[in-house]
Amino acid sequence: MAIKKLGKQTIKFLNPPSIISTATTVGPKEGEGPLKDYFDTIIYDDLYGMGSWEKSEAKIQIETVKQSLKKINLKEDDIEYIFGGDLLNQIIATGFAARDIGAPFFGLYGACSVMSEALSLGAMAVDGGFADKVVCIASSHFSTAERQFRFPLELGNQRPVTSQWTVTGAGVSILSSQGNGPYISHVTTGKIIDKGIIDPNNMGAAMAPAACDTILAHFRESGLKVNDYDYIATGDLGVIGSEILIDMCKKEGLDISKRHTDCGVLIFDNKKQDTHSGGSGCGCSAVVFNGYLHYLLENKEINRILLIATGALHSTTSAQQGESIPCIAHAVTISNNLGGEL
Amino acid sequence: MAIKKLGKQTIKFLNPPSIISTATTVGPKEGEGPLKDYFDTIIYDDLYGMGSWEKSEAKIQIETVKQSLKKINLKEDDIEYIFGGDLLNQIIATGFAARDIGAPFFGLYGACSVMSEALSLGAMAVDGGFADKVVCIASSHFSTAERQFRFPLELGNQRPVTSQWTVTGAGVSILSSQGNGPYISHVTTGKIIDKGIIDPNNMGAAMAPAACDTILAHFRESGLKVNDYDYIATGDLGVIGSEILIDMCKKEGLDISKRHTDCGVLIFDNKKQDTHSGGSGCGCSAVVFNGYLHYLLENKEINRILLIATGALHSTTSAQQGESIPCIAHAVTISNNLGGEL
Repeated sequence: MAIKKLGKQTIKFLNPPSIISTATTVGPKEGEGPLKDYFDTIIYDDLYGMGSWEKSEAKIQIETVKQSLKKINLKEDDIEYIFGGDLLNQIIATGFAARDIGAPFFGLYGACSVMSEALSLGAMAVDGGFADKVVCIASSHFSTAERQFRFPLELGNQRPVTSQWTVTGAGVSILSSQGNGPYISHVTTGKIIDKGIIDPNNMGAAMAPAACDTILAHFRESGLKVNDYDYIATGDLGVIGSEILIDMCKKEGLDISKRHTDCGVLIFDNKKQDTHSGGSGCGCSAVVFNGYLHYLLENKEINRILLIATGALHSTTSAQQGESIPCIAHAVTISNNLGGEL
Repeated sequence: MAIKKLGKQTIKFLNPPSIISTATTVGPKEGEGPLKDYFDTIIYDDLYGMGSWEKSEAKIQIETVKQSLKKINLKEDDIEYIFGGDLLNQIIATGFAARDIGAPFFGLYGACSVMSEALSLGAMAVDGGFADKVVCIASSHFSTAERQFRFPLELGNQRPVTSQWTVTGAGVSILSSQGNGPYISHVTTGKIIDKGIIDPNNMGAAMAPAACDTILAHFRESGLKVNDYDYIATGDLGVIGSEILIDMCKKEGLDISKRHTDCGVLIFDNKKQDTHSGGSGCGCSAVVFNGYLHYLLENKEINRILLIATGALHSTTSAQQGESIPCIAHAVTISNNLGGEL
């Protein structure tokens, strides 16, 4: 038991779960971005044939789960647990998707940190011997998020330069104790960090301190070095949040600048696509990881990444009551090769 | 591994985690109810000295965690994980509490099923060897829930006879691999069940089918019998939902009538306190379990219960879009004695 626990926040798996399938669905804007060739499905109508954006987001989840199962000839009945969530109040996209799929379901809320929260808990369930086929899922939708957290889209509000563009999409990983990798070897679980940011149009700045805290804990506790990773990939700090993160880590004596990337920076061409500071949302890290980064791992173009999905638990209610934005970041190590320093 | 997995939804722990401490805080109305002597703290001002009901709910969580730690001489720094949630959008009560406590945090959303969702995942973390001191927490607050899900309190809306009263309160369990019980021996994880109920003032009827589905799965898979339990305690079906549950189970050939109780029925004197169908909210099962039922177990007045917290993932957005209410129920077996049929 002592071997599994490396430090206050970090655990190491004795039988690292394998990611045996992934799938992604993205919206029209993501389907025109630089990563478009790495996604399984691009929808060209963000209502996806449904009567509302919320129903569309649920359908995106359902179809993405089906695709991840189809790739490895599994049926919905083979799923032992779903770990998942989204940004919507009462996580309705995931709730309705879980209703359709019909598997035992653990609902999560970690704002945009859900993908790595789900991978953390899913991997614990597999390594702990509680299940062998676990679905981890996260989604977001530009139109459902904007109207819930900010303003009705019809207002046509001007977006400040610090704002980010919520990704429309869902990403799924299926974990198993059997498989040939990539493997989840380490998990570093985040704490709530809140440095007093109150601007809901500057989420990157709000979340950077949480990412920094988790990354520092990871390297302090795991014994791994920055150079052991091909990428240290944060979820959705965007351009501005990424700069802040790199600066904050440097001040603490950790230089991640050569290995750092951010899913929110990768997914859009900010200049051509007018997305300002970059992409955001649970779906951002979910589709960039399960689409692009997983592809690079599977094809041995890279060997190991640290995925740190970052969440801002922004609430319109608490914001109106003068509260700042509590943030969290969960880190997961995903490797092809478990030898050497692992 | 085969030993842990008893069926599609049910697992059995090889080293059943022990509940080493509990604590509860309740509001004024709960403090006048039939269980008042079993709660640690009764607050007589539902703002708890704070500027808003939401801040009050966060403070209730923080103080309840502190009390659960104090009882066994632990410090906040000893907590390895917090598993918790509440009913509020972006689970802000739990988010702000986790910010204050500063421990690694997994945010959950399962509506009123959170207490048993947290116990399920917390027990998996302990049995799996990932942690040894885990805090499981859930809360709700009458005034935060009413205005979020129904109407502003100032409207003074009339409450239909099927309506329930959201409990103000928080309950905490601390789990550990060491301890003398009560132990968590089995977990049966629920699926989303939705029988088409659309009335947000009839949550008991909406949730009863989910409770029935999980209870049937539990007895089918665990090998345990109804008479192995002193109580089969649902979370917050209330009077009406409880009757529906007992009928539904009977139709499926399972008579739970002699062992069934419901936290929502126990917590208020419905006639004297004008609570109609009974109590509800994440806090309902959290305080009745961690207060009353845990007391009975600890004092050997009973030996074993099945706790089935029940959640209605009701959303005002999806309700306005014509959707019915997806529900879920998670069951956890809590025993003093692991011998015999266990």
